[in-house]
Amino acid sequence: MVLAEELAKQQKSISVAEFFEKNKHLLGFDSPTRGIITTIKEAIDNALDACEESMVLPDILVIIRKTGSDTYSIAVEDNGPGIMPEQVPFVFGKLLYGSRFHQVRQSRGQQGIGISAAVLYAQLTSGTPAVVISRTGAKTKAHRFTLMIRTQTNEPEVLSHEEIDWALPHGTRIELEFASSMAAKKRLLEYLKYTSIVNPHARFRIEIDGEGTTFERVSGEVPPCPRSIKPHPHGIELGILKRMAAASDLPVEVFLQEEFSRVGKKTASEILALALIDGGVTASSLSPPDLKTLLATMQTVRIPAPPAQTCLSPIGEELLVEGLEKEFALDFVKARSRAPGVFSGHSFVVEAAIGYGGRLEAEGSAKILRFANRVPLLYQQGACAITQSIQSINWKGYGISQAGLPMGPVLILVHVASTNVPFTSESKDAVASIPEVEREIVLALQELGRDLKLFLSRRDRGRIAEDRARAVCAIIPDIASKVAEIVEAPVPDTSAIEGRIMRRVVVKRGLRGDHVSIRVDNHTAKPVELTLYDISADTGEGATIPPDFVSDLDGETTKCWRVALPPHESFLTEYPGSGGGSLSVQGIDESQMVLLNLDE
Amino acid sequence: MVLAEELAKQQKSISVAEFFEKNKHLLGFDSPTRGIITTIKEAIDNALDACEESMVLPDILVIIRKTGSDTYSIAVEDNGPGIMPEQVPFVFGKLLYGSRFHQVRQSRGQQGIGISAAVLYAQLTSGTPAVVISRTGAKTKAHRFTLMIRTQTNEPEVLSHEEIDWALPHGTRIELEFASSMAAKKRLLEYLKYTSIVNPHARFRIEIDGEGTTFERVSGEVPPCPRSIKPHPHGIELGILKRMAAASDLPVEVFLQEEFSRVGKKTASEILALALIDGGVTASSLSPPDLKTLLATMQTVRIPAPPAQTCLSPIGEELLVEGLEKEFALDFVKARSRAPGVFSGHSFVVEAAIGYGGRLEAEGSAKILRFANRVPLLYQQGACAITQSIQSINWKGYGISQAGLPMGPVLILVHVASTNVPFTSESKDAVASIPEVEREIVLALQELGRDLKLFLSRRDRGRIAEDRARAVCAIIPDIASKVAEIVEAPVPDTSAIEGRIMRRVVVKRGLRGDHVSIRVDNHTAKPVELTLYDISADTGEGATIPPDFVSDLDGETTKCWRVALPPHESFLTEYPGSGGGSLSVQGIDESQMVLLNLDE
Repeated sequence: MVLAEELAKQQKSISVAEFFEKNKHLLGFDSPTRGIITTIKEAIDNALDACEESMVLPDILVIIRKTGSDTYSIAVEDNGPGIMPEQVPFVFGKLLYGSRFHQVRQSRGQQGIGISAAVLYAQLTSGTPAVVISRTGAKTKAHRFTLMIRTQTNEPEVLSHEEIDWALPHGTRIELEFASSMAAKKRLLEYLKYTSIVNPHARFRIEIDGEGTTFERVSGEVPPCPRSIKPHPHGIELGILKRMAAASDLPVEVFLQEEFSRVGKKTASEILALALIDGGVTASSLSPPDLKTLLATMQTVRIPAPPAQTCLSPIGEELLVEGLEKEFALDFVKARSRAPGVFSGHSFVVEAAIGYGGRLEAEGSAKILRFANRVPLLYQQGACAITQSIQSINWKGYGISQAGLPMGPVLILVHVASTNVPFTSESKDAVASIPEVEREIVLALQELGRDLKLFLSRRDRGRIAEDRARAVCAIIPDIASKVAEIVEAPVPDTSAIEGRIMRRVVVKRGLRGDHVSIRVDNHTAKPVELTLYDISADTGEGATIPPDFVSDLDGETTKCWRVALPPHESFLTEYPGSGGGSLSVQGIDESQMVLLNLDE
Repeated sequence: MVLAEELAKQQKSISVAEFFEKNKHLLGFDSPTRGIITTIKEAIDNALDACEESMVLPDILVIIRKTGSDTYSIAVEDNGPGIMPEQVPFVFGKLLYGSRFHQVRQSRGQQGIGISAAVLYAQLTSGTPAVVISRTGAKTKAHRFTLMIRTQTNEPEVLSHEEIDWALPHGTRIELEFASSMAAKKRLLEYLKYTSIVNPHARFRIEIDGEGTTFERVSGEVPPCPRSIKPHPHGIELGILKRMAAASDLPVEVFLQEEFSRVGKKTASEILALALIDGGVTASSLSPPDLKTLLATMQTVRIPAPPAQTCLSPIGEELLVEGLEKEFALDFVKARSRAPGVFSGHSFVVEAAIGYGGRLEAEGSAKILRFANRVPLLYQQGACAITQSIQSINWKGYGISQAGLPMGPVLILVHVASTNVPFTSESKDAVASIPEVEREIVLALQELGRDLKLFLSRRDRGRIAEDRARAVCAIIPDIASKVAEIVEAPVPDTSAIEGRIMRRVVVKRGLRGDHVSIRVDNHTAKPVELTLYDISADTGEGATIPPDFVSDLDGETTKCWRVALPPHESFLTEYPGSGGGSLSVQGIDESQMVLLNLDE
């Protein structure tokens, strides 16, 4: 038997940097291809968070340059508030160092791992240090660092530090070099596109080997930065409560009100009365059994949900619809922001949108866009609670075919925003399965599904009606000529009737004696706006409705009417003249219109 | 704009214990129900690893007691080598502390996180410390500790430490209390059952509130402990090579041979010649560009795969088949161990088994058993590369219906053993998607699928033959009575003919004058073994084949023959007597036999 002494010799402490170096796939660095996307994502998350905190409109530049057969240099630059020079080595050169870990509010980054993991990955694969430039204001110079991470200790190693001139008044730039490939270029651009949809106040520019693409901002307003709130009594665990109480010299009654969200004097008294604890004793003096009772009572007393409005920053229905419409020119799109919910004391809100048709592919599975705290999720779609919730819905009931996922030209967007998004892994690829969250996703999508069903059945009814109308129109000319034959009259023009049956706009110009008439009939169910251009030798003077605009050229006069017609209404103007020339119509699709120039 | 100074004030270091406390779901502590299973799994992983290292046959006891309305006490005790008292606080009270992190070999635990995470979870949910007892040999006393983890620093806090008497000569016991539920009791027993299948040398006893279950060991041999090997040149990254070189004062040529697996003098010279590096210079003096070239060359030169036999410990085909047969009484079962493979320089081996019929459920999806390094994987089946590989196979081609997963009474077992199993998350629930590994899984299952197909088509042929035989048998009595009528003879007994047509065993006892005859005909295609019990007033003396065993009781004699018959052979014995009494047969299923006692 090998003795315990021998085994003990091998026991040692492992630094968190060593751990993540060996397990880099846990942080999204599974492959060189993915490494490049993860790095850019981490840098952009940080830039957007910092800009939001300092109320700056983000302007973010990403530069990718090939530096060797399989090495790339990646630089990400922002116009955020910058980082104090003494903090730079820790922010970039130490894992688990950050400002948002203990804050209860929605933010993209939280653990202080992401960007230093990118630095770790760079030095592991290319052996080169990170280059960081940061400037905190126009009055100070910029600071330039080259730095690495000492893996065995998880401490930063600064190789150089100097003050330099820099074009930006404030901001941060990080440059890394690592073994990678641009195999995922399409996915990278997709990531930027989706990031820009949910961050309409930010501008992104990306240059890949000199070739640039810009994702312009569409809003000039910085969204309000979510504010940190106190923990909610329903989301606390005994170990944490013990720590909080031990650190407080307040009377319990005040401690509860000061340290927890949504606990006022009344709630505090109610909790303490039920727990049989004297509100006057100091929190730090509570015994372990007292704390257990206190916790149990806190969690049974009814307390309002945490104040989601201040700590969360949803995208909003309007913005979701706009972003999707712009990107996919959809036939149908609708968004729904659900009311905030709570799981284990963490606030969350689910937003969802469904799109149909447009530029979406008609075949194959629906397009799924997943977001968490305004960050697109690109990997592990199958493992994500969002996907599983989508699959759990019976889409056939909404007129959509389904094979696990819904099929056809459908887009489904889900955004989960929370003070603590429950990811399945530290690479933040997929949302873990939390019943409260899944329920909200399903409810939001079911609401939207009903709207989609309505749209699809209306469209189908429209199609049936159109088919019938088309059949009727096909025989009208025959009927007309038969009737004309019987009554021995000339064959009438039936286009206007066809227009009416087909629910189109009919524009008709004709000559009645020495008068020219122009008539527009709106047979559609919608208001229409169009512009008539009537070009002939007639001047149009004396028209019953005078033209809005007249211009002469080489003896021909262009007479122009702007016509706005409610459904089923008509426009008619007449002027003295002899006709001829041409009539054209602008502002309406040709397929929606019948144009008859009868005096030609 | 908020200035960088203000943001800097919130920046701080986060301890790895704080990180995992907040993100406990990453380690498999997502819910109280799961917490109990994860804790037991971590303790058992450690126990099995330690027993293997010290060549002890593991004897593991798990005790679960309800201590409150929703609190449970969990104790896991093993007979391993024990832990040196000075190590105990670190092993249980500090995350990222362990002995196997830097070893290149198959082991269950690796990061030194699991059991301390359980301690963290216990103190978080119940506020109580862990109790650890450990004894390293019969000559020393046992040590008993109560300890917690200081979350903010990730350092152990020993609350008490004393020497005590303990029944076991060596071993370790950990006891934790936490908020949980026994909702997952079935899954827990399943976990133990599967663990015992792949660790046949271990005995597990579990007591849940006094009710005990034992999973007995079926093998008395400790499997050889995988030995640690040096890293393979194809699996190394620049950052690691730099670190290894910096720490070595050997000439590069020797450095390569000493520090890497499978590099001999010839390979070292080849690498150095191609890299244009002088083999005589000290490794630590190599410049960064030299190291880059060296790495690139190391990875292009052909080098044999790492020595999988020493560093891996597969289960073996025979053991897999035995374990499954015992558990599910399968109609068909076959296992395959593939030859070792390599991904990124890490050795791995894939083993698979397919079972059919028996106690498996006839309806629904196939039963999937996933293992990694001899540990069953219970969660996140959908996210696992094993499941995805199974789904990628066209099972219909093997006669199995399929809806994503194969359907019907099918069991599929896959074991991935590796020096570095690529898990999708630190909770070790699912194997990540690595093309080399997935390819081996698919190949193993395809081979087994072909065998299963053969079995199924033979069985179907057998069924058709049986249906025909049954039809023939149905008319035999009619034919017999018709023929008897014609030839005016008594109706003969046709059972033996039926037995022959139906491919069964026919056992027939009859009286010929003053002799009793017993005849056994094996009409099946398999050898049979059975025991005849002939009970009557006859003594059986003078039998042509004497009984193997005779016993008298109250004037009746039991005569007993053990009969082993190859396919299509017969057994016949005769003895003087007058018959009567009874004949019974043991050792063969009734459905496989026709028993005729003709003298009754």
